[in-house]
Amino acid sequence: MRGLFIGRFQPFHLGHLYALKWMLKRADEIIIGIGSAQISYTIRNPFTLGERIEMIWRVLRYEKLYDRCIIIGLPDTDEIHTTWVAYIKTFSPKFDIVFTNDPLSIMLLKRENISVSNIPFFNRKNFSATNIRKKMLENDAWRKYLHPEVTKYLDEINAPQRLRMICNLEGKNK
Amino acid sequence: MRGLFIGRFQPFHLGHLYALKWMLKRADEIIIGIGSAQISYTIRNPFTLGERIEMIWRVLRYEKLYDRCIIIGLPDTDEIHTTWVAYIKTFSPKFDIVFTNDPLSIMLLKRENISVSNIPFFNRKNFSATNIRKKMLENDAWRKYLHPEVTKYLDEINAPQRLRMICNLEGKNK
Amino acid sequence: MRGLFIGRFQPFHLGHLYALKWMLKRADEIIIGIGSAQISYTIRNPFTLGERIEMIWRVLRYEKLYDRCIIIGLPDTDEIHTTWVAYIKTFSPKFDIVFTNDPLSIMLLKRENISVSNIPFFNRKNFSATNIRKKMLENDAWRKYLHPEVTKYLDEINAPQRLRMICNLEGKNK
Amino acid sequence: MRGLFIGRFQPFHLGHLYALKWMLKRADEIIIGIGSAQISYTIRNPFTLGERIEMIWRVLRYEKLYDRCIIIGLPDTDEIHTTWVAYIKTFSPKFDIVFTNDPLSIMLLKRENISVSNIPFFNRKNFSATNIRKKMLENDAWRKYLHPEVTKYLDEINAPQRLRMICNLEGKNK
Amino acid sequence: MRGLFIGRFQPFHLGHLYALKWMLKRADEIIIGIGSAQISYTIRNPFTLGERIEMIWRVLRYEKLYDRCIIIGLPDTDEIHTTWVAYIKTFSPKFDIVFTNDPLSIMLLKRENISVSNIPFFNRKNFSATNIRKKMLENDAWRKYLHPEVTKYLDEINAPQRLRMICNLEGKNK
Amino acid sequence: MRGLFIGRFQPFHLGHLYALKWMLKRADEIIIGIGSAQISYTIRNPFTLGERIEMIWRVLRYEKLYDRCIIIGLPDTDEIHTTWVAYIKTFSPKFDIVFTNDPLSIMLLKRENISVSNIPFFNRKNFSATNIRKKMLENDAWRKYLHPEVTKYLDEINAPQRLRMICNLEGKNK
Repeated sequence: MRGLFIGRFQPFHLGHLYALKWMLKRADEIIIGIGSAQISYTIRNPFTLGERIEMIWRVLRYEKLYDRCIIIGLPDTDEIHTTWVAYIKTFSPKFDIVFTNDPLSIMLLKRENISVSNIPFFNRKNFSATNIRKKMLENDAWRKYLHPEVTKYLDEINAPQRLRMICNLEGKNK
Repeated sequence: MRGLFIGRFQPFHLGHLYALKWMLKRADEIIIGIGSAQISYTIRNPFTLGERIEMIWRVLRYEKLYDRCIIIGLPDTDEIHTTWVAYIKTFSPKFDIVFTNDPLSIMLLKRENISVSNIPFFNRKNFSATNIRKKMLENDAWRKYLHPEVTKYLDEINAPQRLRMICNLEGKNK
Repeated sequence: MRGLFIGRFQPFHLGHLYALKWMLKRADEIIIGIGSAQISYTIRNPFTLGERIEMIWRVLRYEKLYDRCIIIGLPDTDEIHTTWVAYIKTFSPKFDIVFTNDPLSIMLLKRENISVSNIPFFNRKNFSATNIRKKMLENDAWRKYLHPEVTKYLDEINAPQRLRMICNLEGKNK
Repeated sequence: MRGLFIGRFQPFHLGHLYALKWMLKRADEIIIGIGSAQISYTIRNPFTLGERIEMIWRVLRYEKLYDRCIIIGLPDTDEIHTTWVAYIKTFSPKFDIVFTNDPLSIMLLKRENISVSNIPFFNRKNFSATNIRKKMLENDAWRKYLHPEVTKYLDEINAPQRLRMICNLEGKNK
Repeated sequence: MRGLFIGRFQPFHLGHLYALKWMLKRADEIIIGIGSAQISYTIRNPFTLGERIEMIWRVLRYEKLYDRCIIIGLPDTDEIHTTWVAYIKTFSPKFDIVFTNDPLSIMLLKRENISVSNIPFFNRKNFSATNIRKKMLENDAWRKYLHPEVTKYLDEINAPQRLRMICNLEGKNK
Repeated sequence: MRGLFIGRFQPFHLGHLYALKWMLKRADEIIIGIGSAQISYTIRNPFTLGERIEMIWRVLRYEKLYDRCIIIGLPDTDEIHTTWVAYIKTFSPKFDIVFTNDPLSIMLLKRENISVSNIPFFNRKNFSATNIRKKMLENDAWRKYLHPEVTKYLDEINAPQRLRMICNLEGKNK
């Protein structure tokens, strides 16, 4: 049995890892589907697809989960939401169930008779990507919510500085 | 050191696997970049990205190469070839060298000061995707050029029948 | 004489039908042009083009207006508003006048020397698609603003539930 | 029961009308889906979507078939053939069966468990759009293959001259 | 030495001209790159690319700067910001330095090892396109911030009326 | 009076310059519209928009024609040829007449009541871009058909080698 775990992973944090491990108890293999694959350098989506694959890959490698996990990119489909399920089937290897908490995704997947399951939250208030990006921006403690491999990588690419520049820009254009 | 191995893998055959193993002797990790990711159901590109990931993943799993290989999709960039290198950098984790035999890719990559190396051929006359697709179409012996995991998968999705239908269609529209 | 009646029809309501009948007194045939044809599953555009054609078709059939009405879809043209009039001419049969209340459309059509007329409102405060979607969302009385054929169809596709799910989603992403 | 009749209708000829009447004996309503809706001014696709709707509409009006036929446009979906069925479901009202002779369409529709039926040919050698366009180009007798309403319309828009200009152009660019 | 001066020039005002002359003291030639080239008829981007080229061209002609200035259009690259530098290199003649105050552009250009310099402001509070558009909308004195050639042109195309219509529209759709 | 001179200029040769000078006798100003602006690195379109602007600019500068010539880029509009005239009007400053020999362009422009004039050929057999590209590929004498400024630039970017690489590639993919 194979599951598809959909998220944007901006960035991939310990809540995601916790959920992944929970899924690996219920499925033989998990496809990690990185949504909004084509977007980067915005406040909600600061990291490129390549950077998000890098983060997740380093964690899989460290945790020795690579034998049961496949990472893929899932680009958005503009305004034609109704073709999104067909896109996923085209860009992903076969799966038996989808793990997601997004209400629109759930509605669209069910319409096509695909099994859907919610993702369990692990202390959602803190372990949320929105919260982590906010803390990064404000120079507040953010490293504790991430796997050491991700922290190290985000420091390598100077993530907090990038977020501040993007934020500065988007504020100005408002 | 990490290399990027670019191909269309329509389908992934034993020549590709031979080349991959050759690269793994020269680099710590190999990113397998599946080109023309958005195309499928044409004679030159019969398989979807998801199907190509599936083929490669099954081989990696069987050969226990998953700890050093990352599979990614690389969509084409229409007619604006000059942005292709920027696309690759966006959609791929970091790499130090690119393995490809495509002259346009080599020219574009060198223009951006990226290291490039040729892919060694392993009996190219037979182990070429074009040759294998031709044999599939003509019901000639094609299974011997593929890893057993790929053969099994192509039978599961009834690949030869798909090729004949597409061929029939494209001939008609010519 | 043929008129083009442009709207988004999210959903098609009795105010639209009233306007259509008013136009049919002034023109031999009316083309009903469904704008933002490519968008669906958003708060302002919950229904697909196919669903909007279905609503309008059922009303035309019930009211026996099919001999003088042609339904067409009109996709948006991204940010290049200045090509929009050329799009309309490409996607629509010939017309002599356009009925619309949209100021940008009026400006662009007049720039190309096309006759434009306003659409008369029929109790606009209540008979507006925005108002009807709001009432659907809040489970307030919405059926009275719609033709019985549309009401029946919207119940078939469970429209109020869809609106609440989309609303829930967009609220979350804000 | 409702059927979807897919064609490009470049132009709509008597073979299409014969097929339409055959379908109307088997279904309550027929949706006439105009494929490659976005293409025009090429040798294989000389007429715009609006012009093709105009041809078909005039025939439906003359033949009083408007109470059971719905005309829609179906744009192509680039190279991502696998999303095409989802597109059709989005852009078309509901249907129970699809009438088409295109092998790729048949394969893609069956993959999604949609009923498909072939379109019966009526003297295919002569009543084919390719043959009619060829005769138009060569100033050979072409009017006898078309409904008088279509003939009249094609003369209005000076169709043979357009074909010759396009042919001239494409030949030059080869 | 050649510089690339990037702006949206909605409209081109005296602050821009001041900056251009400042750059022409530091470089042999200046490429004037008109950003967001594909957008028009919005509040932030009311003028088409053609109209912006017209404004700038008239000023260059009047000021006899045409022997050292090249005007080009630079379309946006959707959400894939990371390919923007490659776009610029494709659509622009060669340059040695970029003049811009946009933080995201600066970050992306520096990532590709391109020299960047800030544009000096000339009384930024008044000489800003946002301020000028606001005054046009409110019928406040706006002509004094523009070159007489631009003022004359904006009156020719009835710019203040266009702004009010667009503003009216966008307010309504909010 | 202002004319629009449309060509692809792959590359800009002495026949083009001859035609430009002929037009400058008939019009006050000439807009040089570079068609297929988005394409490059193909056999028919080897040079980027930026490179083509560079060639033309150097000739204008050398010939001191910059006070009466405006260079612009004109991207293609996919398959929707019917919006092409609207595109041109959006991306170009105002013009009174178009100079082109392309039959489709002539047909589309006349449909919109725009004045069109043919471009006089100057020894067309030799002074054609197709012929020049062919000679470059075959290492035959090509420099004599080009302005010395263009020849120098094409040598700078190593144009003949690029053509051979592209040709090699396209041959292989056939």
